[in-house]
Amino acid sequence: MLAARLHEYTEEMGEALSIDEVDNPQITRSDGVVVEVEGAGWCQTDNHIIEGMWTDYVEQQLPLTLGHENAGTVVETGDEVTLVEEGDKVICHPVMTCGKCRPCRLGEDMHCENLDFPGLTTDGGFAEELLTAERSVIKLPDGVDTTDIAPHADAGITAYHAVKKATRQLNPGDHAVVIGVGGLGHIGLQCLDATSAVTITAIDPKAAARDLAEELGAHHTVDPSAEDVASVIDDITDGTGAQQVVDFVGRDETTALAPDIVAGGGDHHIVGYGGHIHEPAQSLVDGEFSYKGTLVGRYAELQELVALVDRGDVDLRTTRYGLDDINTVAEKLEHGEIEGRAVITP
Amino acid sequence: MLAARLHEYTEEMGEALSIDEVDNPQITRSDGVVVEVEGAGWCQTDNHIIEGMWTDYVEQQLPLTLGHENAGTVVETGDEVTLVEEGDKVICHPVMTCGKCRPCRLGEDMHCENLDFPGLTTDGGFAEELLTAERSVIKLPDGVDTTDIAPHADAGITAYHAVKKATRQLNPGDHAVVIGVGGLGHIGLQCLDATSAVTITAIDPKAAARDLAEELGAHHTVDPSAEDVASVIDDITDGTGAQQVVDFVGRDETTALAPDIVAGGGDHHIVGYGGHIHEPAQSLVDGEFSYKGTLVGRYAELQELVALVDRGDVDLRTTRYGLDDINTVAEKLEHGEIEGRAVITP
Amino acid sequence: MLAARLHEYTEEMGEALSIDEVDNPQITRSDGVVVEVEGAGWCQTDNHIIEGMWTDYVEQQLPLTLGHENAGTVVETGDEVTLVEEGDKVICHPVMTCGKCRPCRLGEDMHCENLDFPGLTTDGGFAEELLTAERSVIKLPDGVDTTDIAPHADAGITAYHAVKKATRQLNPGDHAVVIGVGGLGHIGLQCLDATSAVTITAIDPKAAARDLAEELGAHHTVDPSAEDVASVIDDITDGTGAQQVVDFVGRDETTALAPDIVAGGGDHHIVGYGGHIHEPAQSLVDGEFSYKGTLVGRYAELQELVALVDRGDVDLRTTRYGLDDINTVAEKLEHGEIEGRAVITP
Amino acid sequence: MLAARLHEYTEEMGEALSIDEVDNPQITRSDGVVVEVEGAGWCQTDNHIIEGMWTDYVEQQLPLTLGHENAGTVVETGDEVTLVEEGDKVICHPVMTCGKCRPCRLGEDMHCENLDFPGLTTDGGFAEELLTAERSVIKLPDGVDTTDIAPHADAGITAYHAVKKATRQLNPGDHAVVIGVGGLGHIGLQCLDATSAVTITAIDPKAAARDLAEELGAHHTVDPSAEDVASVIDDITDGTGAQQVVDFVGRDETTALAPDIVAGGGDHHIVGYGGHIHEPAQSLVDGEFSYKGTLVGRYAELQELVALVDRGDVDLRTTRYGLDDINTVAEKLEHGEIEGRAVITP
Repeated sequence: MLAARLHEYTEEMGEALSIDEVDNPQITRSDGVVVEVEGAGWCQTDNHIIEGMWTDYVEQQLPLTLGHENAGTVVETGDEVTLVEEGDKVICHPVMTCGKCRPCRLGEDMHCENLDFPGLTTDGGFAEELLTAERSVIKLPDGVDTTDIAPHADAGITAYHAVKKATRQLNPGDHAVVIGVGGLGHIGLQCLDATSAVTITAIDPKAAARDLAEELGAHHTVDPSAEDVASVIDDITDGTGAQQVVDFVGRDETTALAPDIVAGGGDHHIVGYGGHIHEPAQSLVDGEFSYKGTLVGRYAELQELVALVDRGDVDLRTTRYGLDDINTVAEKLEHGEIEGRAVITP
Repeated sequence: MLAARLHEYTEEMGEALSIDEVDNPQITRSDGVVVEVEGAGWCQTDNHIIEGMWTDYVEQQLPLTLGHENAGTVVETGDEVTLVEEGDKVICHPVMTCGKCRPCRLGEDMHCENLDFPGLTTDGGFAEELLTAERSVIKLPDGVDTTDIAPHADAGITAYHAVKKATRQLNPGDHAVVIGVGGLGHIGLQCLDATSAVTITAIDPKAAARDLAEELGAHHTVDPSAEDVASVIDDITDGTGAQQVVDFVGRDETTALAPDIVAGGGDHHIVGYGGHIHEPAQSLVDGEFSYKGTLVGRYAELQELVALVDRGDVDLRTTRYGLDDINTVAEKLEHGEIEGRAVITP
Repeated sequence: MLAARLHEYTEEMGEALSIDEVDNPQITRSDGVVVEVEGAGWCQTDNHIIEGMWTDYVEQQLPLTLGHENAGTVVETGDEVTLVEEGDKVICHPVMTCGKCRPCRLGEDMHCENLDFPGLTTDGGFAEELLTAERSVIKLPDGVDTTDIAPHADAGITAYHAVKKATRQLNPGDHAVVIGVGGLGHIGLQCLDATSAVTITAIDPKAAARDLAEELGAHHTVDPSAEDVASVIDDITDGTGAQQVVDFVGRDETTALAPDIVAGGGDHHIVGYGGHIHEPAQSLVDGEFSYKGTLVGRYAELQELVALVDRGDVDLRTTRYGLDDINTVAEKLEHGEIEGRAVITP
Repeated sequence: MLAARLHEYTEEMGEALSIDEVDNPQITRSDGVVVEVEGAGWCQTDNHIIEGMWTDYVEQQLPLTLGHENAGTVVETGDEVTLVEEGDKVICHPVMTCGKCRPCRLGEDMHCENLDFPGLTTDGGFAEELLTAERSVIKLPDGVDTTDIAPHADAGITAYHAVKKATRQLNPGDHAVVIGVGGLGHIGLQCLDATSAVTITAIDPKAAARDLAEELGAHHTVDPSAEDVASVIDDITDGTGAQQVVDFVGRDETTALAPDIVAGGGDHHIVGYGGHIHEPAQSLVDGEFSYKGTLVGRYAELQELVALVDRGDVDLRTTRYGLDDINTVAEKLEHGEIEGRAVITP
């Protein structure tokens, strides 16, 4: 089959992946599941992988087929699989977990001690078929399109996971701030709107992103290139600050907003990355705020997100590309030219 | 009466405060309470105030009587006070709150929108008498000594508050790390031991502090000047890291430990301050850990801490000094020469 | 001034209260607030008080002016009041709290150890003026009508409080059941819809109530007089049961639904009362469900509810009656002839 | 091999089970584990099963080998088992779970949609060998005796699970009540003492049980056959009641204590069963208390309990009996003649 593979780390997105002919995946365990990929979202993390930014954090062997936001149709199952069968439409949680270690037993899939992460540590979904496992697939409700929903497998579940943590701390009358209304941010904003009754302010330097934010439920928008964010938030919140801030950007300048815009006792959730936090400890103490790192969500949270999608609460903006166009997608995202989410249809 | 007052910000601890003759405080509101101070703990924050480190965070008018860890005997009450009466032994929560704003109604005393903070924004307890309010005093159980308990008013409640947040996330078999076994740390360690069943590791470069830690319940100690902290914690925790880290130091080198010693999904609580956090956003994302700023605890938490003291679960190490010796205390703490906590007896 | 007062307990709702000429209330404390009542909701609890059902639970001295759902305009304030001033439009939290006891310090207003409950233990709002206190009033946003919002002071906040507990346990894809779509239920349903993304089923024997439920956001309705509730819920939830059930009725037959309709680990919230729970302990163990008694909400929750009203998320169905018609209202509610909520305009 | 089996439901404990020669269990799935049973605790639930009390709640086919509190040595493993190997000492979580359904993914083992419960729905551990699965076994720390620890597999984990729910709501200075200091209660009491800093009152009509309670950490004991429980608790708690009550008995007279001994907003946890709850809904509303049904704990909680045992925090009182004595044990427990826990050593 065909697969888009990374052979060496590079800054050149236009030549990042090559389309190779490789063997189809084989099931070797009783819980194996092979999915014919019908949608595989392209993620900012794919650019980061190509640049080698993950080599400090995980073990990677090149060549590697990227693609960790996958959905499609089950074409083969291991002999003890009962959850799905051939022909089922599924979305794939991005990681494969053992189901036996303590984090797994606590439902903390991302902290599994025996994790495989297709597209990051094993071959992913920018290919005609993907090998995954029973504990990673969720059968889709009738009428949900596999290509359309694919980016929820990672972008969606990551945004939802962060927003869910924020929402648990929010009450009607409170304020929430969403930093960045791109691939993850535009999903997070809708999840926030669907599961809480708070005033939402979205921050993005791009006018189109701010327009999208308003369309999707933001009550206020701020252009950080033209306005003083802290003073605008101060006005909107009557001086208290926002109880919860979800930062889908994670640059130096966005993490630096926290002491000025987070309400006393509140949280600044770090979802996006690339930049740093540089902050005096005293600042966190005085405002009693937290920087909360947040990763991909749990399997159970992907079930919850699928329910939101099925209710019509989350509208994902996607554009489809063939496997051949994959490096173009990589380049476009690098230059901030993708609105919503790009989906590869291998 | 006599009061130890700051007239100008200085780095010279030996001449920081002058002992002035000032008017006794007068009650002007129905809920006013005047306390004859029998113990007023000296806190690292007093040094920071003297250096001017708080001018960016609060409004201060000099001269100012410092002292925010106070206990003593009620000598006068406003005409609607019912909670205490003349002659009652009390400990004073460090701040005076309005009881009307939303944070107050949520029990979040430290986030009161109309806060007075004696010793920081109004005259404090390094004086013969202190003006406070009914909502700030807690009547002590019989047999509790006011001088001995004074440091719990701030050091204690701050340590307890941080540890309580940590404990809510801890289960038997988990690991907790305490960084710094000084004035706050030695209290926090005991609170942790009394309210959980976890393995505790204490980190301190001073041998005496590590010995104290072991005596007070630590299962392991680490000398960061001689050992590689990350690798020791890795060994102790069998590679998972500590679910909760409470950092009573807050220097660059202690906040930098987080990515290496906090377990996936865990927290690094920032209690001490003075240094910075410098960390890539990706590091918080990959380990899904948080830096949680933490401030003084709630009034209700001071009640809980008094209950712990009354049970005999927390043993505070104090040394007593007269008002005249106050600048000596300031100097000694600056040089790390105070074990446990110094208490002024005006 | 005129006040509708209870002189003796009776089953005869048509003659329950008499309209008496009484002295206007006088402020005696620094935090006193007198409100000119512009709306006072009639509550099922008023019927229960008239019948003497509360004598086992609180101390009552007759004659007593009933009315615990009050809103209006501030006409006088004690000399230390800062939160409101003469002319402010306010809604009154139903109880007066001391702000000093431990439950108050935890934000648990209803568990205040020094509680006064106008309309239940002291004179209430079926009168031209009401004496309350600063900690009981919330200034209304511009444009909110005092008569329209009055029932939220108790019916609303009670419904919201129960629903908030339920919502904290609910995730997208989960099921919630609302039993009874009357005065409280129709508010609770809207609060649930505004603050969660779950499938809501409403149970009510009255067709008009079921129609209202559908209009206000219920996805399914059940007529318990014609359908087998347990089997309908089983179908709707695909056999799992509802994670949260909020019972605004509290009769023997509604509490008895719990083992059959609550999902494993879920809750049956008891808001309405009048009937009993009769259930084998084994039934609670086997299904691991809870019966959670729930009372009026906190002051902070009334702030949250006012925010929901201000957002347009909760539409209260009210009918207005003069003080003279008050016994007619009592009778009508007794016979289930009030839709939504009756509001007295003294 | 030999197994103690129930052939028909009976009230005659002395002849309840027969010792049969049966086939050894065979592994049929990749995750199967066969354990040589070295300890199998006898539980009050075994008496209830024998009486037929569980036929309304689960499907049972007789004959059935009872025994759901098992520990021993692994003697055979399925071909994909990695967590344990032949020769490992293990304790068995009482149920076998699929690891795939939503409750499993949330860590809610007891609510697994595909649950097998050896000793209740399939053959249990009153036999030489037990068939269980990888997700049900926990490897024991060195030095922990399999026979001694066996009752923790169900009695222990059930007690711990209830106490953990209670502890999450308790703060220093609060009060907890333990009703019944038998097999479960004496474990629960120790777990409570190890993981909180509250005042504990134990209620039991047997003097030996009350003595044991004091030895294990209770601060007060009450004899309900001689004292008025409500008034004693009122005295001990200074009128507030106990924030948390854990009822290991579950008779009519113990559930009836709730309105009188549970503090406002508190919980009465139903662990034991046999009796009923009969309570007016108004009583739950007025006191805002809950009856919380509670079942066996999670697998992760059994890990936590093993950690407590390994720390020396929980001392289990056991007496050993051979398989031949099993009906004697059944009779003794029925007559309240077993102290602590009886363990069968097949």
